[in-house]
Amino acid sequence: MADDKQRTTGDGSPATDNEPTFTPISELGEFGLIDGMRTILGEPQDEQVLVGISDDAAVYRIGGGRVHVITTDALIEGVHFDRSFTPLDLLGFKALSVNVSDVVAMNAIPRYATLAVGLPATFSVEMVAALYRGLKRAADLYGMTIVGGDTTAARSLILSVTVVGEAAEEEVVYRRGAHPGDALCVTGDLGGAYAGLRVLLDRKQQAQQQGEGYRPDFEHYSYVIQRQLAPTARLNIIQDWKERGVRPHALIDISDGLASETHHICKQSGCGALIYTHTMPIDLVTRDVADEFEEDVDTYALFGGEDYELLFALDPADLEKLDPESFVVIGEFTDAAQGVQARTPEGQIIPLQMGGFQHFGGGRG
Amino acid sequence: MADDKQRTTGDGSPATDNEPTFTPISELGEFGLIDGMRTILGEPQDEQVLVGISDDAAVYRIGGGRVHVITTDALIEGVHFDRSFTPLDLLGFKALSVNVSDVVAMNAIPRYATLAVGLPATFSVEMVAALYRGLKRAADLYGMTIVGGDTTAARSLILSVTVVGEAAEEEVVYRRGAHPGDALCVTGDLGGAYAGLRVLLDRKQQAQQQGEGYRPDFEHYSYVIQRQLAPTARLNIIQDWKERGVRPHALIDISDGLASETHHICKQSGCGALIYTHTMPIDLVTRDVADEFEEDVDTYALFGGEDYELLFALDPADLEKLDPESFVVIGEFTDAAQGVQARTPEGQIIPLQMGGFQHFGGGRG
Repeated sequence: MADDKQRTTGDGSPATDNEPTFTPISELGEFGLIDGMRTILGEPQDEQVLVGISDDAAVYRIGGGRVHVITTDALIEGVHFDRSFTPLDLLGFKALSVNVSDVVAMNAIPRYATLAVGLPATFSVEMVAALYRGLKRAADLYGMTIVGGDTTAARSLILSVTVVGEAAEEEVVYRRGAHPGDALCVTGDLGGAYAGLRVLLDRKQQAQQQGEGYRPDFEHYSYVIQRQLAPTARLNIIQDWKERGVRPHALIDISDGLASETHHICKQSGCGALIYTHTMPIDLVTRDVADEFEEDVDTYALFGGEDYELLFALDPADLEKLDPESFVVIGEFTDAAQGVQARTPEGQIIPLQMGGFQHFGGGRG
Repeated sequence: MADDKQRTTGDGSPATDNEPTFTPISELGEFGLIDGMRTILGEPQDEQVLVGISDDAAVYRIGGGRVHVITTDALIEGVHFDRSFTPLDLLGFKALSVNVSDVVAMNAIPRYATLAVGLPATFSVEMVAALYRGLKRAADLYGMTIVGGDTTAARSLILSVTVVGEAAEEEVVYRRGAHPGDALCVTGDLGGAYAGLRVLLDRKQQAQQQGEGYRPDFEHYSYVIQRQLAPTARLNIIQDWKERGVRPHALIDISDGLASETHHICKQSGCGALIYTHTMPIDLVTRDVADEFEEDVDTYALFGGEDYELLFALDPADLEKLDPESFVVIGEFTDAAQGVQARTPEGQIIPLQMGGFQHFGGGRG
C-alpha cells in the first residue's frame, strides 16, 4: 500500500528494518486510501459482481436480468456534521439521502437500507427518536424500506447507512461511459450546500463571540441552509429519464464538488472535459452568501460539494428529449489529451484541479 | 418512543410543556432502543420484505424463489474493542466474521460486503493495510466479495460492515420457529471469548501496574484469546446441514450470550426453554481461566457472549442426521408458560435471566 513511500517511524525518524513503518494517512489522501484498499482486496472473483469499488455503488446480478447496487456512507460527528447546528431529524434525513444519491447515480431505484448507529452516552431517547423520524421521512420520500439496524454506544454520534437499489442490468449507468462530444450536464444548482455551511459556521462563531444576546437571522438563507442540512437525492430525475426513455452515457452524483466529480468521470471514461463556468447554475441566495463573505461564487460551485445534484454525460441528440427545466448543459466532454478544463466568462481556458473537500487532506489532483 | 417514561429535563428536574424531555438511553437499554426504532420505522410495506428488524438479518426476495439477507454491525473503538491489545488484522477479520455470523444464523450463504471505515488521524497507512488484510482474509475464508467501501476520518477507529447473503426462500431459518419438544442445541464451545477478554484485560492491568519489565505469558491462553480477537463464523456448519438435508426449526448466533439468545428464540417462537447447565460445552482453557479468577465458568458460558456459535432448535427426529461432532444438545424447548429455565447439576430448576452484555446497561430481562 505504501511501498513507494519513504519509510519513517511514528516520530518521523527513518525506520530500521526492525521497526514498523509509519506513513501518515494524509500523505495518501482519501483517494489514495481507496486505491490501496482496492489493491489489498483484489479484483472481485465473483462473476456476478459487475462493478466493485470504483463507482458510486457496487453492482451485482440477482438473476432475471436484474442487478442490485449497494453503497455505504457514514456520517460522523465532528467530521461530517457539527451537532451544535444540526437538527437530528434533518441529520437522519441526510444520512439516508446521501446514500440514496449514490444509488440514483447508478440510475437505480433505492429499495432497502440498513443502519448502524453509534450513540454517545449523553443522548436521550427523544434525540434518538428524532434521528429515526428523519430517517423514516427520507425512506418514505424515496419509497424505500429501512430493513435493519444496529444500535450501539459510541463516543460521538455515528450514522453508517447502507442502501441497496435495483435496476435492469442494461439500465445501469456507470462513471465510465462518457464520450468526447457528449454534453456535460448538471441538475439543480451548485454551491448552495457549501454556502449554507459557510453561513452556519459564521453564525456559530458570532454566537460564541457575542454571547447569549445574539439572535442570528437565518430566514434569508433558509434555502442554502436546507441544502446543507437536508439535501434531497435526485431520484425524481432518473424516474423522469426512465419515462422519457433516455439514458446518459455516464453519471455521478456531486458529493465532493463539480470539479472533483468531473475528474472522476473523465478518469474512468478516458476523456477530458471543458466546463463553461458562466453557465453553472447558481442560486441567488448562494451568490448573496459569496458576496457577504467577499468570496468567489464560482469556487463554491466548482469545489463546494455536498450538493447531491447529478452530473451526467449526454448524447447531444438526446438533449431535446429531456425536460429542459430539469438540467443545464454546462460544458462538453473532450479528448483525454485536453484534460479537465474550465472556460472563464472572459474566454480564458484554464486547467481545473480536482480540489474539493477531502477529510484527510493531501492526495489531490 | 418514551411516552410511558417520566418526563425530565437534561438536569433531571421535571419538564414543563415547553421544555424538551430527556430520557436517558440507559433507561431503555439496547433492546428497548431497537423496539423504539421499530415503532418509528413501522412495519415494512414492501411485500418483497419477508423480515425487517426482528431477526439476525433482514430478508427480501430477489426473484426466482431466492432471497437476500442483509445485516449491519459496527465495531467501535473503546466500546467493542480495546486497541491496546487488538491486532488490526484480527480486528478486520472479526468485523467481517461477526456480520457473516448473522447471515449464517439465517441459514444463508454470505456473498457481498461493504465497509464504512472511520480512521483516527494517528493511523498510518500501514495500519490501514493491516486492517484490510484481515478483512480480505475473512472474505476469502467465507468465499465472499468485499464490493464497496467508504473511508473517512474519525476520532476513534470505527468499522461498520454490511453483509448480504443469499438463500432459497424456503431454506431461511428464523428465530421464530422453535416448538416445545425441540432439542436445544449449540455448536462448538461456550464462554471462551469472554475468558479470552478476561485474560487480556487482566494482563493489561498487570502491565500497567508492573511497568515495562512485565512479560505476560499468553501461550496457555491462545485458544480463548483467539476466540475473543478473531472469532470464526460457523459457515461450515450450515453448509454441512445443506449437504445432509437438515434444517433446524429456529436458529440464532450467540453474540450476546447463550441465555440472552435463548430468550430471543423463545420470545419470537412463543415457547419456553430448559437448559441443562452441566451439558454446556466448555473448553478446558475456559475452565482454567474461570479457576484463575475464582469465577463460575457456567456464568461465562451463559452470559459471556461473542462466541459466535450457533444456537438452534432441532426436531428430535433429525438429531441422528447431523454430524455428532458438530453440536451438543444442551436442553429442550418447552411450553411458553415455563419461561426460560436452567437445570443445575444438582437437579435444581431456576429461572434464567437474559443477562448478557449490553452496551447501554439497563433494559434487561
